[in-house]
Amino acid sequence: MPTTGERTRSKRWILRWKGHARKWLLQIKRSNLQWRTAQERGTRKSFIHKGSFHEAVAPVLAVAQCFCLMPVLGIGGSSVRSLHFTRKSWRFWYSCLYLCSTTLDLMFSIRKVSHGGLDVRSVEPIVFHVSILIASWHFLHLANLWPGLMRHWAAVEKRLPRYGSYMERSHPVRRIRLVAFLLLSLSLMEHLLSIIAVVYYDFCPRRRDPVESYLRGTSLHLFEVFAYSNWLGWLGKLQNVLLTFGWSYMDIFLMIIGMGLSEMLARLNRSLKRHVRHPMPEEYWTWSRTLYRSIVELIREVDDAISGIMLISFGSNLYFICLQLLKSINTMPSSAHAVYFYFSLCFLLSRSSMVLLLVSTINDRAREPLQLLRLIPSEAYHQPEVTRFAAELASDQVALTGAKFFNVTRRLFLAMAGTVATYELVLIQFHEDKKSWTCSVETFD
Amino acid sequence: MPTTGERTRSKRWILRWKGHARKWLLQIKRSNLQWRTAQERGTRKSFIHKGSFHEAVAPVLAVAQCFCLMPVLGIGGSSVRSLHFTRKSWRFWYSCLYLCSTTLDLMFSIRKVSHGGLDVRSVEPIVFHVSILIASWHFLHLANLWPGLMRHWAAVEKRLPRYGSYMERSHPVRRIRLVAFLLLSLSLMEHLLSIIAVVYYDFCPRRRDPVESYLRGTSLHLFEVFAYSNWLGWLGKLQNVLLTFGWSYMDIFLMIIGMGLSEMLARLNRSLKRHVRHPMPEEYWTWSRTLYRSIVELIREVDDAISGIMLISFGSNLYFICLQLLKSINTMPSSAHAVYFYFSLCFLLSRSSMVLLLVSTINDRAREPLQLLRLIPSEAYHQPEVTRFAAELASDQVALTGAKFFNVTRRLFLAMAGTVATYELVLIQFHEDKKSWTCSVETFD
Amino acid sequence: MPTTGERTRSKRWILRWKGHARKWLLQIKRSNLQWRTAQERGTRKSFIHKGSFHEAVAPVLAVAQCFCLMPVLGIGGSSVRSLHFTRKSWRFWYSCLYLCSTTLDLMFSIRKVSHGGLDVRSVEPIVFHVSILIASWHFLHLANLWPGLMRHWAAVEKRLPRYGSYMERSHPVRRIRLVAFLLLSLSLMEHLLSIIAVVYYDFCPRRRDPVESYLRGTSLHLFEVFAYSNWLGWLGKLQNVLLTFGWSYMDIFLMIIGMGLSEMLARLNRSLKRHVRHPMPEEYWTWSRTLYRSIVELIREVDDAISGIMLISFGSNLYFICLQLLKSINTMPSSAHAVYFYFSLCFLLSRSSMVLLLVSTINDRAREPLQLLRLIPSEAYHQPEVTRFAAELASDQVALTGAKFFNVTRRLFLAMAGTVATYELVLIQFHEDKKSWTCSVETFD
Amino acid sequence: MPTTGERTRSKRWILRWKGHARKWLLQIKRSNLQWRTAQERGTRKSFIHKGSFHEAVAPVLAVAQCFCLMPVLGIGGSSVRSLHFTRKSWRFWYSCLYLCSTTLDLMFSIRKVSHGGLDVRSVEPIVFHVSILIASWHFLHLANLWPGLMRHWAAVEKRLPRYGSYMERSHPVRRIRLVAFLLLSLSLMEHLLSIIAVVYYDFCPRRRDPVESYLRGTSLHLFEVFAYSNWLGWLGKLQNVLLTFGWSYMDIFLMIIGMGLSEMLARLNRSLKRHVRHPMPEEYWTWSRTLYRSIVELIREVDDAISGIMLISFGSNLYFICLQLLKSINTMPSSAHAVYFYFSLCFLLSRSSMVLLLVSTINDRAREPLQLLRLIPSEAYHQPEVTRFAAELASDQVALTGAKFFNVTRRLFLAMAGTVATYELVLIQFHEDKKSWTCSVETFD
Repeated sequence: MPTTGERTRSKRWILRWKGHARKWLLQIKRSNLQWRTAQERGTRKSFIHKGSFHEAVAPVLAVAQCFCLMPVLGIGGSSVRSLHFTRKSWRFWYSCLYLCSTTLDLMFSIRKVSHGGLDVRSVEPIVFHVSILIASWHFLHLANLWPGLMRHWAAVEKRLPRYGSYMERSHPVRRIRLVAFLLLSLSLMEHLLSIIAVVYYDFCPRRRDPVESYLRGTSLHLFEVFAYSNWLGWLGKLQNVLLTFGWSYMDIFLMIIGMGLSEMLARLNRSLKRHVRHPMPEEYWTWSRTLYRSIVELIREVDDAISGIMLISFGSNLYFICLQLLKSINTMPSSAHAVYFYFSLCFLLSRSSMVLLLVSTINDRAREPLQLLRLIPSEAYHQPEVTRFAAELASDQVALTGAKFFNVTRRLFLAMAGTVATYELVLIQFHEDKKSWTCSVETFD
Repeated sequence: MPTTGERTRSKRWILRWKGHARKWLLQIKRSNLQWRTAQERGTRKSFIHKGSFHEAVAPVLAVAQCFCLMPVLGIGGSSVRSLHFTRKSWRFWYSCLYLCSTTLDLMFSIRKVSHGGLDVRSVEPIVFHVSILIASWHFLHLANLWPGLMRHWAAVEKRLPRYGSYMERSHPVRRIRLVAFLLLSLSLMEHLLSIIAVVYYDFCPRRRDPVESYLRGTSLHLFEVFAYSNWLGWLGKLQNVLLTFGWSYMDIFLMIIGMGLSEMLARLNRSLKRHVRHPMPEEYWTWSRTLYRSIVELIREVDDAISGIMLISFGSNLYFICLQLLKSINTMPSSAHAVYFYFSLCFLLSRSSMVLLLVSTINDRAREPLQLLRLIPSEAYHQPEVTRFAAELASDQVALTGAKFFNVTRRLFLAMAGTVATYELVLIQFHEDKKSWTCSVETFD
Repeated sequence: MPTTGERTRSKRWILRWKGHARKWLLQIKRSNLQWRTAQERGTRKSFIHKGSFHEAVAPVLAVAQCFCLMPVLGIGGSSVRSLHFTRKSWRFWYSCLYLCSTTLDLMFSIRKVSHGGLDVRSVEPIVFHVSILIASWHFLHLANLWPGLMRHWAAVEKRLPRYGSYMERSHPVRRIRLVAFLLLSLSLMEHLLSIIAVVYYDFCPRRRDPVESYLRGTSLHLFEVFAYSNWLGWLGKLQNVLLTFGWSYMDIFLMIIGMGLSEMLARLNRSLKRHVRHPMPEEYWTWSRTLYRSIVELIREVDDAISGIMLISFGSNLYFICLQLLKSINTMPSSAHAVYFYFSLCFLLSRSSMVLLLVSTINDRAREPLQLLRLIPSEAYHQPEVTRFAAELASDQVALTGAKFFNVTRRLFLAMAGTVATYELVLIQFHEDKKSWTCSVETFD
Repeated sequence: MPTTGERTRSKRWILRWKGHARKWLLQIKRSNLQWRTAQERGTRKSFIHKGSFHEAVAPVLAVAQCFCLMPVLGIGGSSVRSLHFTRKSWRFWYSCLYLCSTTLDLMFSIRKVSHGGLDVRSVEPIVFHVSILIASWHFLHLANLWPGLMRHWAAVEKRLPRYGSYMERSHPVRRIRLVAFLLLSLSLMEHLLSIIAVVYYDFCPRRRDPVESYLRGTSLHLFEVFAYSNWLGWLGKLQNVLLTFGWSYMDIFLMIIGMGLSEMLARLNRSLKRHVRHPMPEEYWTWSRTLYRSIVELIREVDDAISGIMLISFGSNLYFICLQLLKSINTMPSSAHAVYFYFSLCFLLSRSSMVLLLVSTINDRAREPLQLLRLIPSEAYHQPEVTRFAAELASDQVALTGAKFFNVTRRLFLAMAGTVATYELVLIQFHEDKKSWTCSVETFD
């Protein structure tokens, strides 16, 4: 409760601060200008750690292109202007070929399944194929949108406050690449383990030759129609590897998008956190509000492009988790199978959780500014721009969605965990009635 | 952050824009006037594609009247003024007769069911009859409200911004008719398939004559009371056809209402999207706010009239989906039955999803203006009308409801899908325990 | 979009309207004064239909006192000032005696149950006794609060706008009494049916004398301890009647409170609906805002007093519905049992739904003013009082609660119905697997 | 609706009130000053009941340190400045030792479980060990943060309005200690009961010596690896006691934090309740808003520190409740086991409910100011600070969270109770089908 003396002092303080703040804004402008000039003059080398999302994501997209996804050109270029999409590239036709072969594979699977009984367990290969097919189609469509999307992204990135240091600047890039390659390696490891489990501990061999037996087992749905031949077996295996990678890649891609978008919000929040306790001129608030708005617009545009992939990723993860839990109540034929099974289950669970947590960070970061605005001192709060910013933040819900059906927030984690746990409990119930309170005398003599 | 020079320039720009905007408003007024004059002078022909909901819905209502629903007069008239409802028309008495015969049919069904054991599976015909009976009663009541409702609708439609081109204008009408007749044809096809499945692959024939056997099977509840006679059999079949159509028509009607209402909001949104980034005079905002408000009022009025039908439609769809899934775990007696069964299940699932998605579009469209208001530039935002519009949008929840018990939004889809999936999983659980990890040697020799 | 000419006209209109409105406010004041004078002079007769909640509820409380609940004095008095609570009245001691005997009865029940196996079905009498015991204790506590509560209620009622006509005024009173006595009669009928089902179709008689056999069956938990004697049998039956009534009365009482509170909000809404489209002076908005606030304060006070009863009522209803559904899958020993069972189930379901719907009306009515404020014309909206009223309405959630754990709104209905339906579906699942797609040849010859 | 005469009177009244209010603010300042002076001069004795959270929590932390948790130094000091954390204290190493031995114990448990079949029931010891291990690690980390946290807490506490009397001041301290020691005693009692149940009614003794048999049973996982020796048995028992205490302590700690934080909000609310109906100067509102904000900031800081413990506590409680209910459907080997089992179940249920209710009080208290602001009279409401306070309160959600996944509010109680009840109902369903409507003739002769 300031006295009159305090009040004049505080006014003087505000004036001084406003001066400082105006200088700060000029500095931002000037440094942004310098930045852009530097950018135009720089060579490729100097950009490696400039922290742009386009550069961070390049190797991840390159890997995807090896596996027939995202056929966009110019991903290695130093600026977003090099990105383009054309139907006249071999990458596009490579992806189309992949789509065709997957469709074919799917048809053979449907044929096989419909000959057996049609139930939830047996539709596993159909769900697997269909979800990857739709996702691949989405990735092809996304490749078309990607150049425009990245240009919008780069335009928003340029307006963000600059990083303080080289370390800070290169941190998000390194983080994105680390997550991507960690996940890719684990995915590879899981696939190798599955081969080991099947080849070396084959409990019902189909042929004496282990390679033939393995290839036959992998593509049973093909060899019900065609006679066995080695090249068809290897082709089926190749298709299987591509599908498995495609399935993991969905999640990896979503994680990276989530990290990229939440980093932008985090940079804005850091700026707000620094300035929020001091009276700032209205221009600062206009700047931060419009910046926030343009990030939100970008998030919505990204969401329109990837929310289909999101829905498929979440849906298929949930389905496979439930299916694995259903299998977990059976005894394993060998310990190699047990190791593979539990590794695979853990990998699936942690990958699904990571997607959810990394994508939901966007929502967490987007709600932070509202808390920060609460800390603005009274004398600086009652500006129309601050009131507008606060009102907009209070009624906004910013998050990536699953085809607009659900928002990806931390709350979703609990809902999904709850669903899985309920299912697991019901499942256990049918196997557990007789075991309790019995005396297990083991060492009595 | 504009300097003083920029500010004067921006002011001049605003003034120029305000001039433009005022001209635009005058133009709207004038064109609306022309429109109305044209409307009064025009012949029936010139209206076919004027895009009014009344004209779009006319053939759909005409079909309904063939099946004893919605006995309102003047649906083919060129303007809403021709609509009226009277008890002295044969259509009204035709509907009443239908209600009576359905009630009678229901009673015979109850008699039959109560003689067997009373459980959830066996109450299927009762649920079917009761839901259609209540819906028919609702349609009769709705026919009474329809003329007033359509007049209100037409009044709001007149206030909407005009379409840009002939194509744009005729698009919603064609879309509504396409959806309606697609659904009607699929419904017809499903009914024919059911006849084929029963007649040609009758696995337990009741009589040697296939027609008699079929008619007897359709109206078992009648022939437990009365001796068999051909005319009664055909009467029972007619009643069965009317019921089946009524059941599908509920959903079709709701889809059309959903499309009509969301189109109105979409037209307002298109206007907002064009003007939102430029400073507009306060009159523009008053105009758009009151227009939005009158659409919302119309939505509430429509909701009061049809929310009962909505509840019955959603409830019965959910019940029949669960019931079909319950049946799906049994083996089919013949492949004709299997084809019919899976076609019927897919039709049911896609029809239910379509109702939900088309009706929930209203909610999506109604939330869009809030996002658009965020884009208004600072110098144009701080007008009382804009603030009021934003505050009202932030706290409003606009959607059709199921008897006020639930709002029909995209989120509901997930909730319903979750319920069905949980049920399906529990169901599978009791049939799946023994099948896993067994070696299925098929090609070993 | 008004021109300048229109604007001056609208201003003149506003001024004229403000004059009218001020006159209206004076009229309200004057008529309220007359009302109060009349009230003080009137005899009991003239108040019978004055529409106060105190008078409406009097006969319902009188019935409750016959069954040892709500021992408050002066409920028949013409004004709320006659209400008081004292420990020196026989009604208080009568209630205490009832609490003691119920506690005793509960102990015998616990003794009986713990001798059998302890499971969810067998704890039915314990749940029944405990829920009524707690509710009775709550009613005793409520009797203490009742005089203060009713005085607050009457004070708020006096501030409400007057009814238009005698009919309108007496309508809520008649509605409250109708609901109460309808429910009481149905409850009585259900109890008589239960006696008939047991006495006349006793499928395992305990004694040859039907009266003895019946009394013995009613109080099995007593006659396991004491030898049979007629007077103890009749005492046990009396206790049983009192418990059954207490259980129904909980729901009836909650319905009446719900109707009373929502009627107050409805009266305010009617006044708002009349005046909202015209520019009203700021005093009108202060008046309606403070009136709304005082109704909300009253609702909170009532909620503090009865939310315990609400929780017990909803919990026990849900428990008994699930239990009845569990029983419903067994075959009935006789058709008298079947009639009683389905009547009892329907009564339970409809009573539970009615409580929920009538109490949730409060929430519906409390959200209506927000919609009405939307219709205020621009020139009248930008007054501080209207803005304040709108902001408070947008962030308020007004509803009675179940011990603050849940708000009683229409949405709760769906949640509860969903819970019951899920339970029912799981339940059916275990009894339905074999019955489908079998050919039921009945008339083949 | 005040006339002009009333208005001048009300203005005079406001002026007089403002004078009073200003005096009141000066008084607060002065008394706060006196308070601080007194605090600096006082001896330890005089602080015992000064009502600071630091003093209230001291004995509870002391008990925790006996059981190797929270190794922070200076908890008995008279002021928060005495608190510090160092790695060079024996308490820190004692905690580390405990972490190591728990890890070792966990490994032996995993070894034992993996030799048996891996299912949900058998993983009980693993869940128990892992949850306590993570919680202990969290407590060690919390000990590091504790001095800073308590200094922040004390700083906020100093800004709160003073208590009215000595009684009021000492009440929260006594309440905190009462709850803590009640819970600790019950926890001890439950452990003793478990020993009695096992030792005296050992239904399958492993050795003739009851002590050896008991120790062997407690640490079965150790004696599968090592030969039996008395000192190892006692060590295993010690570890078991520490684990059991750690498990209960989590909940007790959370309760105390919940009580401390909600008491702060309650003190602010009491001040608001006193002043809200009178026009107060803007300074008062700035004071209460910033005070509220600083409490919220403290709550967020506390939440960051303890939300991990919260998640583990809620998760493990839910798991163990479901597990106990699963066990409850088996018959008990002896009545000693039954007594222990039901005591243990009740203790678990009531402890879990208490944590939830006490922690959710924070949320209830934090929403109260919004209701109080509604009561501000018109002439005092339209100050920018009041509007800001109201807008912030309307859009804030203040609550402790479980690792940000869920907010701990009263609504959570219903969700958890619902989950447990659903599980229980499904469980009962499989054991109840045959028992209904059978005639249990017991006294017929």
